[in-house]
Amino acid sequence: MRHEQLSELGQQLRVDSVRAAAAAGSGHPTSSMSAADLMAVLMGNHLRYDFEKPDHPGNDHLVFSKGHASPLLYSVYKAAGAISDEELLTFRTLGSRLEGHPTPRLPWVDVATGSLGQGLPYGVGMALAAQRLDHVAGRVWVLIGDSEMAEGSEWEAFEQAGFDRLENLTAVIDVNRLGQRGPTRHAWDLDAYARRIRAFDWHTIEIDGHDIAAIDRAYGEALSTIGRPTAIIARTLKGRGVASVENREGMHGKPLKDPEEAIAELGGIRNLAVPVLGPPTVTPTRPTSEGPLSLPRFNPGDTVPTRDAFGEAVAAVGTSRGDVVALDGEVGDSTRLEYFQKEHPERYFEFYIAEQQLVAAAVGMQTRGWTPYVATFAAFFTRAHDFIRMAAISRADLNLIGSHAGVAIGEDGPSQMGLEDLAALRAVHGSTVLYPCDANQTAQLTAAMAREPGICYLRTTRGGTPVLYPPTEEFPIGGSKVLRATEDDRVTLVAAGVTVPEALAAADRLAEESIPARVIDLYSVKPVDAGALRTAAEATGRLITVEDHHPEGGLGDAVVDAFTDGRPVPRLVRLAVRTMPVSATPAEQLREAGIDADAIVAAARELVGGPA
Amino acid sequence: MRHEQLSELGQQLRVDSVRAAAAAGSGHPTSSMSAADLMAVLMGNHLRYDFEKPDHPGNDHLVFSKGHASPLLYSVYKAAGAISDEELLTFRTLGSRLEGHPTPRLPWVDVATGSLGQGLPYGVGMALAAQRLDHVAGRVWVLIGDSEMAEGSEWEAFEQAGFDRLENLTAVIDVNRLGQRGPTRHAWDLDAYARRIRAFDWHTIEIDGHDIAAIDRAYGEALSTIGRPTAIIARTLKGRGVASVENREGMHGKPLKDPEEAIAELGGIRNLAVPVLGPPTVTPTRPTSEGPLSLPRFNPGDTVPTRDAFGEAVAAVGTSRGDVVALDGEVGDSTRLEYFQKEHPERYFEFYIAEQQLVAAAVGMQTRGWTPYVATFAAFFTRAHDFIRMAAISRADLNLIGSHAGVAIGEDGPSQMGLEDLAALRAVHGSTVLYPCDANQTAQLTAAMAREPGICYLRTTRGGTPVLYPPTEEFPIGGSKVLRATEDDRVTLVAAGVTVPEALAAADRLAEESIPARVIDLYSVKPVDAGALRTAAEATGRLITVEDHHPEGGLGDAVVDAFTDGRPVPRLVRLAVRTMPVSATPAEQLREAGIDADAIVAAARELVGGPA
Repeated sequence: MRHEQLSELGQQLRVDSVRAAAAAGSGHPTSSMSAADLMAVLMGNHLRYDFEKPDHPGNDHLVFSKGHASPLLYSVYKAAGAISDEELLTFRTLGSRLEGHPTPRLPWVDVATGSLGQGLPYGVGMALAAQRLDHVAGRVWVLIGDSEMAEGSEWEAFEQAGFDRLENLTAVIDVNRLGQRGPTRHAWDLDAYARRIRAFDWHTIEIDGHDIAAIDRAYGEALSTIGRPTAIIARTLKGRGVASVENREGMHGKPLKDPEEAIAELGGIRNLAVPVLGPPTVTPTRPTSEGPLSLPRFNPGDTVPTRDAFGEAVAAVGTSRGDVVALDGEVGDSTRLEYFQKEHPERYFEFYIAEQQLVAAAVGMQTRGWTPYVATFAAFFTRAHDFIRMAAISRADLNLIGSHAGVAIGEDGPSQMGLEDLAALRAVHGSTVLYPCDANQTAQLTAAMAREPGICYLRTTRGGTPVLYPPTEEFPIGGSKVLRATEDDRVTLVAAGVTVPEALAAADRLAEESIPARVIDLYSVKPVDAGALRTAAEATGRLITVEDHHPEGGLGDAVVDAFTDGRPVPRLVRLAVRTMPVSATPAEQLREAGIDADAIVAAARELVGGPA
Repeated sequence: MRHEQLSELGQQLRVDSVRAAAAAGSGHPTSSMSAADLMAVLMGNHLRYDFEKPDHPGNDHLVFSKGHASPLLYSVYKAAGAISDEELLTFRTLGSRLEGHPTPRLPWVDVATGSLGQGLPYGVGMALAAQRLDHVAGRVWVLIGDSEMAEGSEWEAFEQAGFDRLENLTAVIDVNRLGQRGPTRHAWDLDAYARRIRAFDWHTIEIDGHDIAAIDRAYGEALSTIGRPTAIIARTLKGRGVASVENREGMHGKPLKDPEEAIAELGGIRNLAVPVLGPPTVTPTRPTSEGPLSLPRFNPGDTVPTRDAFGEAVAAVGTSRGDVVALDGEVGDSTRLEYFQKEHPERYFEFYIAEQQLVAAAVGMQTRGWTPYVATFAAFFTRAHDFIRMAAISRADLNLIGSHAGVAIGEDGPSQMGLEDLAALRAVHGSTVLYPCDANQTAQLTAAMAREPGICYLRTTRGGTPVLYPPTEEFPIGGSKVLRATEDDRVTLVAAGVTVPEALAAADRLAEESIPARVIDLYSVKPVDAGALRTAAEATGRLITVEDHHPEGGLGDAVVDAFTDGRPVPRLVRLAVRTMPVSATPAEQLREAGIDADAIVAAARELVGGPA
């Protein structure tokens, strides 16, 4: 498009942003207006996208990291003919797809944004997938606000993209000088941003973000820069074009006071339709067929760490399914994800110790149809908690594997122990949480994750545990296994992972004391096997849960879920890690925490001895 | 000390690191050996510290961000005469203070480390407190591993320290080239680190980390650099001094195979005692006396957002207590923390949108005796989850305030809604979790937090809620309020925060239907008021919990805690946010989520109508 038209388009995007926020009575028009020219030139002359085929593998990706500028994004969609003016004005109302911050309820939105500092890490994942997996030329454009440049996750992404020479990634930084509260740290010091980003091996271009010709040239320069990603750092005015709000403090995140006057000042309503360039014809290389799956088989009675079984299983899943990719946070030797690397090095990605980028890359890759397995220590997924939370809003399909769970790791001490992971992952919307106790179970669940939608979390153990099940046993998600049961059981022991062998040992000893105990292996912590728990509760009247996790939000709470529909609830005792662990051997740790067989026996004696 | 002595001291630190790991049978001797010369010169010639008075306000701080190099730290303590050789060899055993990663069980350790990338952000907090609050010249030295430079939190800290010109902060980067799995991203490219760090406005010095004279000069240069922090980037050899492990892959995190031979190769056991320089005499300016507290008073019947009440209350607490500081993540206008800024600008710190640095700075400040209040959106504390988890291991006293909790925020949509915060914060060891429903309650709890040890979390609401309590009402932590009760109650409604008014409205309607309902305001989610819940359960037999949070790990699970000692459990129904929210008005949100008065009434009818 010609520059005069693009200038008009910029004004249209401003007018529509003002109108959408005015209709909603809330939203961020001023943050939209600063970036309107940047987006007008992008969509008019550079973006390659088929709005009728959002899954086209040759499409570019456009990520609004500054998700609060959603009025601008929706105005872009209107100008592209993707949504009607009528729909634009449904912004932020119940039933509308046009939410306050973009979500994939709109088919052109790949990832939900709104928690700042996330767009670029997602973009890195998309760009990596396009370049290294799909081998297509599609480009990733990420619109970033200046305030969010303070987030460390941005710098994890700058580092990763610079190191990986992602020339197909362009960051567009809208430096409008004003954050939510007032001036940003660097205000209009474009060089402050540019020299930091250049230090991370990016190409940088500083421009006036309202100079159409300069913007157009900058995009052209980004497209022709090879061997490194490009950051366009644009000086802009927040609220550009409307004197009452332009470059003024206190104008963040609210509709304009007099939208009619503002629209007039911006030259009135326009209805330019932009013919966005289509994507090139590409042939995606992602295999979609599934080959035979040959999972590892472990011999009952052997002692095998579940992390080892995971590693062997994920390598086998990768052999069966060419769409599976593995992402490591520089602990692949510990999590055993490196077993995948040995078999499928071309689908293995190293993110070093940068867990936010690690999880975000997986979210980005799955938008292009890949199936990611992401592994680090269970404790260190806390580093990426916000990304996991947002991934649920992105409707992402992710497989997360947290190793070194619980006090059972032993001497390394509490900093390395995942003791809050079940609580955090259970509370993620629509998540699946699995905690296997033996190697064959781990292998089966590792394979099952690939077919499960949403955020799936598998918790593995550092040390060896006895193989309890034959390799042929099946473990449906949402199921459980009754490992001990008689007609006369007086208590049910509910365990998972490393506490299953402890519960079995306890049951053996309790049987000698004429306290027959049922034992349930609750490997599916969410969804929980309500049926089995209710049956056991009716039969035994008493439940003891035992878990290598803090008492809040883990296995004990999951068990209660089966009884929160108003039915009678069994008597409950909960054994969990209530102390602050120190360094000790694994066996000492279980004893000190009160989650070993001795503790279970003592609790069962007391519970059964109490009033019925 | 002379350089020959320092060289000997470096060898002693290596030998002792090897011995400690050998005695433990685990640990990280090779990661200790690379930094031994760096630490020898620091303790011999530059560190100012009184090991007999670890709380001396003039002391320097030494933070081992690479916490796995704990054998080196403990060897330093031995050389300083702080621990005996006998204690050194208790490393990683049950009962020893010398844990696998350092914790403040040792009086000279300010913060627990072991989750990488955290030391520098803590150091920023300590350096800010020394410079801006205590006005003392003490210095902060942070030993950082090269692998952890990938963490975004490091760059949040580099940005903050450079911007704040923290000349009293020195980062010592031990570039030993080898991470856990193999070579780091930048291997021995010292300039890759230096140019990034310089771009963030630090002074940088590149040295050979085994050249004693160069190290000594670098520390001197750091001490004499004014107006900016200094990073010493040192090229080192992992496992330095023992040929079988030096600069070899696969030697991470395990004791040496032949420690005796290694010790001989290092020149044998030494017992140098280092006279560490004492701190200067300083007069701390931190006020320790408490003045009268004049909390805001709100009129019952008025409608006031609890976030507003928090803002007014924290400002009042700051007036009463001169040791209170406030830390903002560029949302002080939303959280209302800026009310504190207006009264006490000298004790208000802006961290922009960098939640990891935000929380870490508070941890750092409390090591110097300050009492921090940290506020951001409840949702965005997920960004700092690992820092909060580690803060508990640091035995830190922190007050965290999460605003904009739950679907009740309305149109902004799910990215801005704290719906996992109660689960995450309850699962933190020793935490306190508070969720007030009205303004006077909020004010009282805001003041109470300052006196509560450990991690305290207060959840506030964006929109107005009715003032239910008089300003004189007291709200002990661990308590609750029974807002409706009769002898004939057939069900108990347990609510907190924004669901309390809904529960009251529901009770009013249920009373008309001859279903008298008890209402409990469970403002203390952890610890929970087990007594009141048990009394209500015995009286009514049925509990309905209703919360603006996902069903996992929140209020509903907290209530169950009162019944996990084997006693009879009442029938339970749990109302919570089970859907993925979209944009809608606050009232629509509560209705859509099924946590409004209508939903409570329907649940109560069904529960009471069911079998007794």
